[in-house]
Amino acid sequence: MKIALAQLNYMVADFEGNLAKILVEIEKAKSQNVDILAFSELAICGYPPHDLLERREFIETCLEYVDNIATHCTDIAVVIGAPSINANNKGKRLYNSAFFLCEGKVQQVFNKTLLPTYDVFDEYRYFEPNSSFELLEYKGKKIAITICEDIWENQPVANPFLASRLYALVPMEQLAPLRPDFMINIAASPFSYVQAGTRKRILKQNAEKYHLDVFYVNQVGAHTELVFDGLSMAVNRNGELVAQAKQFEEDTLVFDTENLKGSPIDIDQKSDHIPLIYNALVLGIRDYFGKMNFTKAVLGLSGGIDSALVAALAVDALGAENVRGVLMPSQYSSDHSVTDAVDLANNLGMQYDIVPIKSVYNQFVSDLNPLFGNLPFNVAEENIQARVRGTLLMAVSNKFGNILLNTTNKSEAAVGYGTLYGDMNGGLAVLGDVYKTDVFKLCYFINRNGIRIPENTISKPPSAELRPNQKDSDSLPEYDILDGILFNYIELNRTPKEIESLGYASETVAKTIRLVNINEYKRFQAAPILRVSSKAFGFGRRMPLVAKY
Amino acid sequence: MKIALAQLNYMVADFEGNLAKILVEIEKAKSQNVDILAFSELAICGYPPHDLLERREFIETCLEYVDNIATHCTDIAVVIGAPSINANNKGKRLYNSAFFLCEGKVQQVFNKTLLPTYDVFDEYRYFEPNSSFELLEYKGKKIAITICEDIWENQPVANPFLASRLYALVPMEQLAPLRPDFMINIAASPFSYVQAGTRKRILKQNAEKYHLDVFYVNQVGAHTELVFDGLSMAVNRNGELVAQAKQFEEDTLVFDTENLKGSPIDIDQKSDHIPLIYNALVLGIRDYFGKMNFTKAVLGLSGGIDSALVAALAVDALGAENVRGVLMPSQYSSDHSVTDAVDLANNLGMQYDIVPIKSVYNQFVSDLNPLFGNLPFNVAEENIQARVRGTLLMAVSNKFGNILLNTTNKSEAAVGYGTLYGDMNGGLAVLGDVYKTDVFKLCYFINRNGIRIPENTISKPPSAELRPNQKDSDSLPEYDILDGILFNYIELNRTPKEIESLGYASETVAKTIRLVNINEYKRFQAAPILRVSSKAFGFGRRMPLVAKY
Repeated sequence: MKIALAQLNYMVADFEGNLAKILVEIEKAKSQNVDILAFSELAICGYPPHDLLERREFIETCLEYVDNIATHCTDIAVVIGAPSINANNKGKRLYNSAFFLCEGKVQQVFNKTLLPTYDVFDEYRYFEPNSSFELLEYKGKKIAITICEDIWENQPVANPFLASRLYALVPMEQLAPLRPDFMINIAASPFSYVQAGTRKRILKQNAEKYHLDVFYVNQVGAHTELVFDGLSMAVNRNGELVAQAKQFEEDTLVFDTENLKGSPIDIDQKSDHIPLIYNALVLGIRDYFGKMNFTKAVLGLSGGIDSALVAALAVDALGAENVRGVLMPSQYSSDHSVTDAVDLANNLGMQYDIVPIKSVYNQFVSDLNPLFGNLPFNVAEENIQARVRGTLLMAVSNKFGNILLNTTNKSEAAVGYGTLYGDMNGGLAVLGDVYKTDVFKLCYFINRNGIRIPENTISKPPSAELRPNQKDSDSLPEYDILDGILFNYIELNRTPKEIESLGYASETVAKTIRLVNINEYKRFQAAPILRVSSKAFGFGRRMPLVAKY
Repeated sequence: MKIALAQLNYMVADFEGNLAKILVEIEKAKSQNVDILAFSELAICGYPPHDLLERREFIETCLEYVDNIATHCTDIAVVIGAPSINANNKGKRLYNSAFFLCEGKVQQVFNKTLLPTYDVFDEYRYFEPNSSFELLEYKGKKIAITICEDIWENQPVANPFLASRLYALVPMEQLAPLRPDFMINIAASPFSYVQAGTRKRILKQNAEKYHLDVFYVNQVGAHTELVFDGLSMAVNRNGELVAQAKQFEEDTLVFDTENLKGSPIDIDQKSDHIPLIYNALVLGIRDYFGKMNFTKAVLGLSGGIDSALVAALAVDALGAENVRGVLMPSQYSSDHSVTDAVDLANNLGMQYDIVPIKSVYNQFVSDLNPLFGNLPFNVAEENIQARVRGTLLMAVSNKFGNILLNTTNKSEAAVGYGTLYGDMNGGLAVLGDVYKTDVFKLCYFINRNGIRIPENTISKPPSAELRPNQKDSDSLPEYDILDGILFNYIELNRTPKEIESLGYASETVAKTIRLVNINEYKRFQAAPILRVSSKAFGFGRRMPLVAKY
């Protein structure tokens, strides 16, 4: 039997666009005499649709498009993800389903059992879990149809307090006794730089434990914060990798179930996370713009490393002709700020303008003098500078239609080292899930074939340049220490005591954690962040604002 | 048997503060010879703790404080809400529990069965549902202990596509055959202006259906967006109201189970929602400031109705001496803008300053001239004005420590009629869940005992005053029509066709819905909104940003 996996880049609620892509794949598969063509989880509407699932017309449209696609399923069968209605009047309104289409009709519907409800996932908000198990029988084969999480044994979270939890019900333990010939799993599994390895491990585990060939189809493409990396694959019953689709690109795989030779999977193999993050961020930018019908970006170029990296990523995602920089020096800017930024723009081949902020800043200070009197310069004046820059950038955005890219990194976002309505402005936060230590590594990666980001930008001490001779290290621990503490606190949810036991000074741990906690209010209003780690700021991390921290 | 219900205002994670309040109530109840004293759901840590529940040290602290409180439970028994650990290694790590404390120890733990996972609730994210049912037996009485949602029959959502769903498992159907003498329900049920009536209906239903006296204890107080209104009560087995605690205030009720005379409940009684919303907003402001240890507020006074209403609410919540207004007229401001705002400030007895924005605005335009050339005035220049104002207000906030109150109403927030990083700035959005038509009604309510908000502010046509002679009605439908469409779309999730069938013009419906959808990106970065309706913008409404709308 011939099985094909179509790894496509969907757009949420773009039924016509998604349909067009799906139909192309169906015709292609027909011409290759494919028996079953599988599309990913909720492919009809794109994943994640969030609360659109609560809208009646959205669900009805999903089902109309399933019926439409079914009419094309002659001489081929299709497995495709879509929501379906729970006909029982008890429990949640919907199921997260895999529809089996052939002979022009919906033949069978399989529902998801394990509904991820942690981190960025809210599936129990919408869906009733499946509790009845049957196989698909087609052309003499018995096939287990599962959906994403259904083949996981526990919640894939990094937090050791939660990670060891097993699922009470394991769908494959119900399906295996029915003796399936193979399994098709349709997924929507987002990228994080640890996830690809975890997925391979899970697929190998299932293949070996149930002695079953496993066909796994994921979606690809970015949906605001979430980047899906694809890597659809087949793992044979010996736990070997038969073939794997491209990462971060659309791709299709075709398999013959009678010929699934594979090669061993080394689940302990570590891959360098920096190129992965680079690719995820480029795809994240490209899809945010492409799917919103934007072409042009703007960002502030400070001469510093964060804005330089975002500029390079934006150029790689959108083309140099679509990225515009604005240099906005102040009296506190170092000599190198402008020259480094100009060098960067020239290296990248992107347009830039210089708009000094001194006059507007002075006018603000002068207009506020009746209120401020002789009170000393403090954070109020520092923030005015950041907000003047934010306002200039948004003016360029509003006038020319360029979307403002935010350049805050995860270390800064964590400790609140940024100005709301100033440098926190932007439609998309490109580096909001990238720690400063990885920002440096990404710059070296960008420069791997020659200097694009000026060396001085990488080597000079980081500074916000909002007062004379300011350096990040005046008020923050060195970044390798800061990032170590942050990773343990945010990604791993380790307790302060556990973090101290790793060798960090207790005052530094306490100060860092306090800064993280008291800055929830800033992150609440931050731009959406491209997620590349196992725990990003944003809707996957929900902390109270008003709390005793 | 004497039952007491302690309706307290907790703060999330303030273990010492919450403990102190709880101990006062225990001592008071002991002196009144109370047998069982009940506190609300997750009282130990305050509700909602959000992802703090994923932190090991947070759970351990909760349990330490439960043990501490138990040592005070001599000559009295206590029922109190706290998370507990699921000792099984399957399923979620925690239960949402009611601890029964007496004779100095934890005697029994009851777990919540129905875990709300919709709108603002994420309980399935953290908790394993209970599946075993037993009664509490104490001093010869058999008592059903339930937690909040456990006594609901279905999800209390307004959306008719979802609202009719029954729960698959009804805890009281399991507990009733065990023949309890009465029921204690500990809750954390947030205010919305329809919720109080719904709660009474549910309690009456349970009392009558199971022929059972019901004691219901809720928390009171605001936790960022969520306002809890209290209204703890007892309903006797005839479905009559025995007594009800205060709304929006701490309160304690004491009952004798042998004497539960009550008066009939009219579940169809409609109460005016405007005074309720007024009280909820005042409590919301007061607790946001009080719990964050802030005392002083600042806001921009435009002479318009929204800022006037927020000023009055802030004065009522914080005292006139703690509220500061800034008037920031431009060349497009009408003659009345300043005089109306000055009248308001004088009426309310609050401090104000006048900082015209013309010079800073002109400086921005002049500095941007090399980039903008002769391009016509458009949204870029309009937004510069709003952002200059936002920057001035934040400068005052940063210099003097006043928290900026945002004045955007729900109608504006819905259609994106506001400037990001400008008039959308603020620590708390006071009116973000109040439609413009209710803003007018609230102003009349504020003026019920005499003019506080100037009549001209209420009667003049709404305008953003960002270009000459601008009026809201130039680009938006009249507010009664707009709000009618918005309410049906947002609160009730009605389809466009259903909304048209109510008599709204199809172009107006389509235009309004499109504006709502394409402005998700603005609301993503908006300030937290005090929730007073059944569906507020914010974390209870999760829509994709990048989607085909």
